[in-house]
Amino acid sequence: MSPIKYYYDLMSQPSRALFIIFRLSGMPFEDRVVALRNGEHLTDDFKRDINRFQRVPCINDNGNKLAESVAILRYLSAKGKIPEHLYPKYFVDQSRVDEFLEWHHMSLRLTCAMYFRTVWLEPLLTGRTPTEAKIEMMRMHMERNLDVVEEVWLESSDFLTGSTLRVADIFAACEIEQTRMADYDVRIKYPKIRAWLKRVRQSCNPHYDVAHEFVYKISGTGPQAKL
Amino acid sequence: MSPIKYYYDLMSQPSRALFIIFRLSGMPFEDRVVALRNGEHLTDDFKRDINRFQRVPCINDNGNKLAESVAILRYLSAKGKIPEHLYPKYFVDQSRVDEFLEWHHMSLRLTCAMYFRTVWLEPLLTGRTPTEAKIEMMRMHMERNLDVVEEVWLESSDFLTGSTLRVADIFAACEIEQTRMADYDVRIKYPKIRAWLKRVRQSCNPHYDVAHEFVYKISGTGPQAKL
Repeated sequence: MSPIKYYYDLMSQPSRALFIIFRLSGMPFEDRVVALRNGEHLTDDFKRDINRFQRVPCINDNGNKLAESVAILRYLSAKGKIPEHLYPKYFVDQSRVDEFLEWHHMSLRLTCAMYFRTVWLEPLLTGRTPTEAKIEMMRMHMERNLDVVEEVWLESSDFLTGSTLRVADIFAACEIEQTRMADYDVRIKYPKIRAWLKRVRQSCNPHYDVAHEFVYKISGTGPQAKL
Repeated sequence: MSPIKYYYDLMSQPSRALFIIFRLSGMPFEDRVVALRNGEHLTDDFKRDINRFQRVPCINDNGNKLAESVAILRYLSAKGKIPEHLYPKYFVDQSRVDEFLEWHHMSLRLTCAMYFRTVWLEPLLTGRTPTEAKIEMMRMHMERNLDVVEEVWLESSDFLTGSTLRVADIFAACEIEQTRMADYDVRIKYPKIRAWLKRVRQSCNPHYDVAHEFVYKISGTGPQAKL
């Protein structure tokens, strides 16, 4: 059995999350970088051979192709590749992490991604600047969810789903870090998120900084300056 | 141990999905209907005692509160309450179902829900009619994902993740049924989805029709007329 092939681009939030989780888990994998900026995922070959949904991240485990970061995480956990302290096997503890992972798609992930897309990606692709009203609306949607992270998820614990780092924290941090590139500074309004992000980064380094190298570069500030 | 308390509103797509899954599984549960239209989920009591995210569906299993439909499904599967033919325990088969469940949040679920909200819910709440351009944009986003269901998920199998009904089909059908209320008829452009929806309904009845009674009523057509 050869190690899994991991297809990813560190510009993609869930790609970074899995990259950090794999490295922290000490799981060997074959690097298959996919340059989204060059449309490498949009070819017919990619669709046929790698991922029928033409997205990253995805894996190929000795012929078994699987997409969707959270599904990949669970599959590899079931194979014993992810340590229990990152993704618990006991179903009650696992359900707390699952609750976050399922919650985050349509809330934190969606709205941080839309903010990033509106403020950074679309102007780059189209040459058009978004209106102030549109940016404000996107910021409002995002902050409604950052409020929930600050006030509910981080209400009384150091990490999102308890007192220690879990995969939930890594997925969430990667979504929030994306907004740096759109010059959003989450630290200003959210002291708990600020302190939590620092803990997540420390718990995951050096892998966290490796995964975010390009994010730091685009945002024009080093990790120290931001956290 | 008393049966779980299930908090739901059949106007909510994932509430219907879990309702059908619980009934099909023969799992006893205590009915706790939450009338979203009356804002019953928005009270401080609901936030403190039932679900800190103030949404449905959610459960209380002898004091253990859990939100997020997919997390709830996985928790109850781990407790042996969901039969394997609906949600497999073997991790390779389970990963195929997980792949769909994770995919659907930001694609099928998001865009069907946005179409429903734009065409049906917002006019009801605000009294304002959406512009044709807005409806068209929402329809385009939704159909981009219906195309993926028709051409990729249903490419060569009777159900989304293989030859038999799984929870993935139930979650997906409940999202698509929601658009009926906004007078969208998925059958017109999508023959595979049409035939699949019929199979899902037949496999899940009588529970499917019970769950969709209000949807049929609002859309003004009985299940036979539509499927």
